[in-house]
Amino acid sequence: MQIGMIGLGRMGANMVRRLADGDHNCIVYDVQDSAIQALVHHNVAGATSISDLVSQLDQPRVIWLMVPAAIVDESLKTLVPLLSSGDIIIDGGNSYYHDDIRRGNELKLHKIHYLDVGTSGGVAGLDRGYCLMIGGEKEIVQHLSPIFETLAPGVDAAPLTVGRTNRSSTADHGYLHCGPQGAGHFVKMVHNGIEYGIMGAYAEGLNILHHANIGKSKVDSDAETTPLRNPEHYQYELDLTEITELWRRGSVIGSWLLDLTAAALVKDPKLENYTGRVSDSGEGRWTIMAAIDEAVPIPILSAALFERFSSRGAADFSDKLLSAMRHGFGGHIEKSD
Amino acid sequence: MQIGMIGLGRMGANMVRRLADGDHNCIVYDVQDSAIQALVHHNVAGATSISDLVSQLDQPRVIWLMVPAAIVDESLKTLVPLLSSGDIIIDGGNSYYHDDIRRGNELKLHKIHYLDVGTSGGVAGLDRGYCLMIGGEKEIVQHLSPIFETLAPGVDAAPLTVGRTNRSSTADHGYLHCGPQGAGHFVKMVHNGIEYGIMGAYAEGLNILHHANIGKSKVDSDAETTPLRNPEHYQYELDLTEITELWRRGSVIGSWLLDLTAAALVKDPKLENYTGRVSDSGEGRWTIMAAIDEAVPIPILSAALFERFSSRGAADFSDKLLSAMRHGFGGHIEKSD
Amino acid sequence: MQIGMIGLGRMGANMVRRLADGDHNCIVYDVQDSAIQALVHHNVAGATSISDLVSQLDQPRVIWLMVPAAIVDESLKTLVPLLSSGDIIIDGGNSYYHDDIRRGNELKLHKIHYLDVGTSGGVAGLDRGYCLMIGGEKEIVQHLSPIFETLAPGVDAAPLTVGRTNRSSTADHGYLHCGPQGAGHFVKMVHNGIEYGIMGAYAEGLNILHHANIGKSKVDSDAETTPLRNPEHYQYELDLTEITELWRRGSVIGSWLLDLTAAALVKDPKLENYTGRVSDSGEGRWTIMAAIDEAVPIPILSAALFERFSSRGAADFSDKLLSAMRHGFGGHIEKSD
Amino acid sequence: MQIGMIGLGRMGANMVRRLADGDHNCIVYDVQDSAIQALVHHNVAGATSISDLVSQLDQPRVIWLMVPAAIVDESLKTLVPLLSSGDIIIDGGNSYYHDDIRRGNELKLHKIHYLDVGTSGGVAGLDRGYCLMIGGEKEIVQHLSPIFETLAPGVDAAPLTVGRTNRSSTADHGYLHCGPQGAGHFVKMVHNGIEYGIMGAYAEGLNILHHANIGKSKVDSDAETTPLRNPEHYQYELDLTEITELWRRGSVIGSWLLDLTAAALVKDPKLENYTGRVSDSGEGRWTIMAAIDEAVPIPILSAALFERFSSRGAADFSDKLLSAMRHGFGGHIEKSD
Repeated sequence: MQIGMIGLGRMGANMVRRLADGDHNCIVYDVQDSAIQALVHHNVAGATSISDLVSQLDQPRVIWLMVPAAIVDESLKTLVPLLSSGDIIIDGGNSYYHDDIRRGNELKLHKIHYLDVGTSGGVAGLDRGYCLMIGGEKEIVQHLSPIFETLAPGVDAAPLTVGRTNRSSTADHGYLHCGPQGAGHFVKMVHNGIEYGIMGAYAEGLNILHHANIGKSKVDSDAETTPLRNPEHYQYELDLTEITELWRRGSVIGSWLLDLTAAALVKDPKLENYTGRVSDSGEGRWTIMAAIDEAVPIPILSAALFERFSSRGAADFSDKLLSAMRHGFGGHIEKSD
Repeated sequence: MQIGMIGLGRMGANMVRRLADGDHNCIVYDVQDSAIQALVHHNVAGATSISDLVSQLDQPRVIWLMVPAAIVDESLKTLVPLLSSGDIIIDGGNSYYHDDIRRGNELKLHKIHYLDVGTSGGVAGLDRGYCLMIGGEKEIVQHLSPIFETLAPGVDAAPLTVGRTNRSSTADHGYLHCGPQGAGHFVKMVHNGIEYGIMGAYAEGLNILHHANIGKSKVDSDAETTPLRNPEHYQYELDLTEITELWRRGSVIGSWLLDLTAAALVKDPKLENYTGRVSDSGEGRWTIMAAIDEAVPIPILSAALFERFSSRGAADFSDKLLSAMRHGFGGHIEKSD
Repeated sequence: MQIGMIGLGRMGANMVRRLADGDHNCIVYDVQDSAIQALVHHNVAGATSISDLVSQLDQPRVIWLMVPAAIVDESLKTLVPLLSSGDIIIDGGNSYYHDDIRRGNELKLHKIHYLDVGTSGGVAGLDRGYCLMIGGEKEIVQHLSPIFETLAPGVDAAPLTVGRTNRSSTADHGYLHCGPQGAGHFVKMVHNGIEYGIMGAYAEGLNILHHANIGKSKVDSDAETTPLRNPEHYQYELDLTEITELWRRGSVIGSWLLDLTAAALVKDPKLENYTGRVSDSGEGRWTIMAAIDEAVPIPILSAALFERFSSRGAADFSDKLLSAMRHGFGGHIEKSD
Repeated sequence: MQIGMIGLGRMGANMVRRLADGDHNCIVYDVQDSAIQALVHHNVAGATSISDLVSQLDQPRVIWLMVPAAIVDESLKTLVPLLSSGDIIIDGGNSYYHDDIRRGNELKLHKIHYLDVGTSGGVAGLDRGYCLMIGGEKEIVQHLSPIFETLAPGVDAAPLTVGRTNRSSTADHGYLHCGPQGAGHFVKMVHNGIEYGIMGAYAEGLNILHHANIGKSKVDSDAETTPLRNPEHYQYELDLTEITELWRRGSVIGSWLLDLTAAALVKDPKLENYTGRVSDSGEGRWTIMAAIDEAVPIPILSAALFERFSSRGAADFSDKLLSAMRHGFGGHIEKSD
């Protein structure tokens, strides 16, 4: 199929490569000309502007936006006046699903179709394929199935699940029409919420292993500090690089995130290249908010998000208040070490 | 090698099968005679008692205990007087590593070697192999490497990690000498703590997806109940069986636990075979205690454990106290629905 | 001053009583006529409708709404067309501060002033006075200070804080202009978020005391259940009624909520009148959402909210998923007790 | 009564003053001679050594230890050989109740009585009195009631609880025999666990208020950072000194800890005297461990403890792992601001 791609960052550029390799015809645009030039090739043509991109596409046009969530509306403002009835816009970024519902309704007035596609796979997606969670009209999703089929990892990416009798669902291929507008990004949002939780589970556990030698340190004991009762229980020097490698085989906690962790530890066993400040990009927050609207308890997913906030110093004022109270009732002066 | 196995439950029996298939010579014992008879076969001989098992083994004997953590000490009480200097006992169950340290020291007085082996793999281990986390004396671990090699999944169970240059570490084969006595069960304990966290992350996220249709329900609003502000955001009927299948391909959160979840949902999409009471078997608790001794924050792993406690009604008295306070200050009567 | 009060529930009725006792002139209305009749008295006149209430008030009118958050907008729809430029509306309920900002802007177009007043005190407020957190225009707040002065607890409600040199701030009297529109309900929202956290802290701690006799129970131990290692540590039968009474004197955790807890336990030591389902009325949820917008970690306040969700069975599906996974990897069948 | 006091730190010294003011006869000892000299006065005599203290006391001796938990056993090693059958030792510090059970059993062999007394009140205890949670033999507790009566705050420290008909319980006076050995420190341990939770609830809530102006900041938005959707909701400059003062009157969350917080903010509104590193002294940790042994969920109390660990940098390695994973799947480079 022919498809226009706007936004050629890490994700967008690799998706174009995968589409072109799959014999789709891509017209591409980015604010950075170099990003365009890097892709132009057989099956890929560059556009000099959004307007140029639109003019190069046959009707009904198919345009995939792969831009930061914060500038999707801005992009639509430029794009929509150039489009015609029946054209299709796909937002493949990390938009808030509330926006999808609103945009879908707005675009309907222009008779433009809108799909929201949550896209997972990261930088490995070029090779592994992208897991696609899709929201919008059923007919449009079916119309674009050649595109999704190419981007997705395909049947062979995972063995047949026990109990499934055939591969007729697109889920077995790695893409799925989840429901009406917003459903794709809703599922992707929760996917990322889960991702935060799993990442945090590994990180906390490995941190416990990392501190398993604490019994070797001499710690002062005074009225403010309880001594470690059994230092003999914490005399281990554990090799996390080897342990994460070990867990990749046969253990219950094997996963792709574990594979990545093992690889990161091979490269930098003490993680000296990291400062410990962790970003979050929206989906984790929205997941918590959705759970609260639904009145569903999510202590793990929220803890994972809050840890990221804390890593950026956001608990400092709170911590100072604790010390101020301790000083108030006990006269305690906090230690500075 | 020749090896004695005591304890032929789900785990022990399958390990014997895997060892026998790997041409090791197994003498086996269980309190249930039927469990013994089910295994007797080429390479597997039954014993009529622990004493009989000991007498059938050549010195230095190798005896693997695969019994509940709570009866390891009892088993040792019977076993140790029958053994000779230089014999080797392996505890492959889920013992608390504190006990390993104590037992190792006690057995040293009898010149008996003790290894603690955390074993992950579950019922799938027979086919997939077992991930083995080993603590104890280095020489003894090396001496038993043929056993570990057979039980472990092997090199091919996972692709080479990016950045690793060779397969010379046993971790690449699926077993690892983690450190001195207790190190194996310490690593396994934390492994299970992580497992609880990962399981909880999936469960919470899928619960959010499950309730994504809440906007379709009519909920009364009064001074006690805040109305859902935007019911139009919660109109999705999401198919969790298809979504978990989808995530198995190309997504960041692919894992073996996800594979199992997808399979469980194929079989029982509404999970009607489950009551919602979740057990915990020790390691999750000990993980939290170790983290507290180390003064390491573990909000996710603890939340996962506490959810299991809650699922069994352990928060009831606490919840009643909340209602009693609400009645006290606000005159609130809780709703009974 | 003269004031109209719409909404005569537990809170509104008592506020009218306190205002009337303070020699303010009250015109009152409620959808329940009996609620009106119960108040009519010297200084209190009833109205037969909102329109009647408006017509009985002198201009500029002062009208206090004390209705569920969900019907404030509906009340305003009736009320506003009846008002005149310069009139003042006070929302004293538990509105979401987003709504205050919107309403303030809308009413400004009609030259009607709008104050949002977060009101804490519950059923005890009649005697103790109400703690008032106020948002809106400074001049309007000052104009209404006689009202606030009467509703608030007054200077003597608490001893002078160490370090404060005088009582000139209205905070010393129990009311405060916190900031522009929404600030009152914002502060009240967080106040309630804190309240959830404090309540939960007492409830969890008392639950631990409640279970301090667990070592007396016989619990089976098997591969699924870790035995209690030291039953001798849990042989206490603690009297929570006496302990909460004790803590009211001299302890660091003395508080009004503790006073209420002690009183509840006197009346119903085993809390048999409560089912353990706990409602939440909006502010706790909005507090979490505000913290997330601010990227501030709030593990305690969120845990308190999630516990309420769990008490209503909202984790059931999540718990079943955990059991399904456990069955998948370990063949575990959950116990039914 | 006559009583010996060993340990004259902040707590011990003030308790001696309160006892002497109550006409008890105190013999006091501390490793710091200056601490002894500061107290010697009518009703207070100094001792030059533990042995000297013992020799100055009439039999059966009453000796109160007020030393760090970590040196109680050491103190007992010196003290016990000097004592006689029937003497009484009171541990009024923050011992782990496991130690009380052990010590009580050991001292019984010497026919020495042992009481564990959890003592709350902090530096304010001199004036307010101390809340005393007592474990041990009933007769010994009764024998020492004159001491407890003097140290405790007394009946007037709190109004009669609604529903209580008389003041015959010692709880109304501020001390309580909670149960056998260890019960006093068990109740005090959980008391402190609750204290951590309450402190954390205030700290988190006030932190949300502190950041309520975040909408005024310009934050970049890119694929890594979700923009604040509604900056107009976060335009408040809230005065925490005034708000905490306000809440002291009539609000549901009034408490002594709030009084202390209000006082701390008067003195240092921006908390510039604090670094944000918060200590913990054992009871919070033991509370979590007890809850885990009891299989009782305590998400709030544990979150409060973990926040203290985090404040001391204990999550750093964990946070770096998160960044390493993010780099692995998404190529993300964390921002350094």
